[in-house]
Amino acid sequence: MSFIRNILNSRTDSDGNFFLKLKDILGFKPKSKSLYIKAFTHRSMNMKDKKGNAINYERLEFVGDAMLSSVIAAYLYEQVPHGDEGYLTKMRSKVVSRQHLNELGKDLNLIDLVQSRIPKSNFGNNIHGNLFEALVGAIYLDKGYKFCERFIYKRVIYPYVDIETLEGKVISYKSLLIEWCQKEKNTFDYEVYEDTGKDELKHFSVRLSINKKVVSKARATSKKKAEEKASKRAFFAFQKQMTKLI
Amino acid sequence: MSFIRNILNSRTDSDGNFFLKLKDILGFKPKSKSLYIKAFTHRSMNMKDKKGNAINYERLEFVGDAMLSSVIAAYLYEQVPHGDEGYLTKMRSKVVSRQHLNELGKDLNLIDLVQSRIPKSNFGNNIHGNLFEALVGAIYLDKGYKFCERFIYKRVIYPYVDIETLEGKVISYKSLLIEWCQKEKNTFDYEVYEDTGKDELKHFSVRLSINKKVVSKARATSKKKAEEKASKRAFFAFQKQMTKLI
Repeated sequence: MSFIRNILNSRTDSDGNFFLKLKDILGFKPKSKSLYIKAFTHRSMNMKDKKGNAINYERLEFVGDAMLSSVIAAYLYEQVPHGDEGYLTKMRSKVVSRQHLNELGKDLNLIDLVQSRIPKSNFGNNIHGNLFEALVGAIYLDKGYKFCERFIYKRVIYPYVDIETLEGKVISYKSLLIEWCQKEKNTFDYEVYEDTGKDELKHFSVRLSINKKVVSKARATSKKKAEEKASKRAFFAFQKQMTKLI
Repeated sequence: MSFIRNILNSRTDSDGNFFLKLKDILGFKPKSKSLYIKAFTHRSMNMKDKKGNAINYERLEFVGDAMLSSVIAAYLYEQVPHGDEGYLTKMRSKVVSRQHLNELGKDLNLIDLVQSRIPKSNFGNNIHGNLFEALVGAIYLDKGYKFCERFIYKRVIYPYVDIETLEGKVISYKSLLIEWCQKEKNTFDYEVYEDTGKDELKHFSVRLSINKKVVSKARATSKKKAEEKASKRAFFAFQKQMTKLI
């Protein structure tokens, strides 16, 4: 116990609002704080419990990955009664793809909560998805399946999972977004600028505004890709209104 | 509803004790009977619901597979605090291996409950595991995660999952069984006989008796394999007493 308290204290010292930020993401108060500390501890911290077992988020990823698979499986089973086993497997793998999990983790800024001895800029892109999985694992172990399911619905299914999109019926998010803006009499603007940053490859950044308000940003190696990415993000934000178009 | 009633009736006519047998396997009374009928309907029956969606166990396998993965993941996470992500993944894949699922389904005689237009003798070996997965899926959809978890503990984890065995510390079940018999002053006998049956390959069958009571049977392409298989089955039956030896 005193060990856990020490970690808690080190957290509190170094990052006073860890649990505040966390509560904001979770939408509930965590019961077992040590689980969430584990979910945001990188292996470079080299932490161990009394028995010498490593304390970091990697084992929690395994649990979170399994819970995501189950919840999405049951959701797709109910939602797509015509889909056979192969279809359901394919659809699930789209929802829990590495790329998608990374987006989910990035949108929640989970990387801000990590304790690590490695500079955060040195992490690869997969850190975002890994942290998201670990967080889901911690929620399951802390609060049980029902709670974990609710979190996945709130953070993955409601905002991001649309069967029509997954089926590839949406070819271009940009054209979908323009169509929607025209129909709803909204103005829109893609502000694109070259942005090399520290990368060797030339990058483009884009700010998409609807009715003069910035609704999404994105960065990619071509103008077209950056615009598509920003449109996709805006699509998710306005999903309910926009899916009526499809 | 009348459609479901028709299926129920056809079940009742053709196999009066379907739900009796099922209750025996489940250890509880099913709520949504149609789910279990689906779990034991082969695609050759060509059944469809009012909307034209196929009624057979294949989609339920997808759900059951996910639930098995989750429950085993959480179990291993708790049981093996020293195991890293790779270890946990490997251990789980042993528990839910095709071969193991087939054994589980076979031990419960699930094939007896199937409705099919194809003769049961024509099914491959995987039917046993597929039916087991479908049954687990039906339980989840019928009674929720907690119930499903309890079933998996009862039918998979308690009787079959032993970490030491999974880690490969048991090299030979036969020697383990002999050691245990000698220690406990039990007599044992492997009765082996050649048994070609309908197979092209020569097969051996073995009946293993402990204290003159047959405790397991097995069949394989060599005497040694058949003895080992029978010993393994006996091991699972006597697991609690025998694991003290390891």
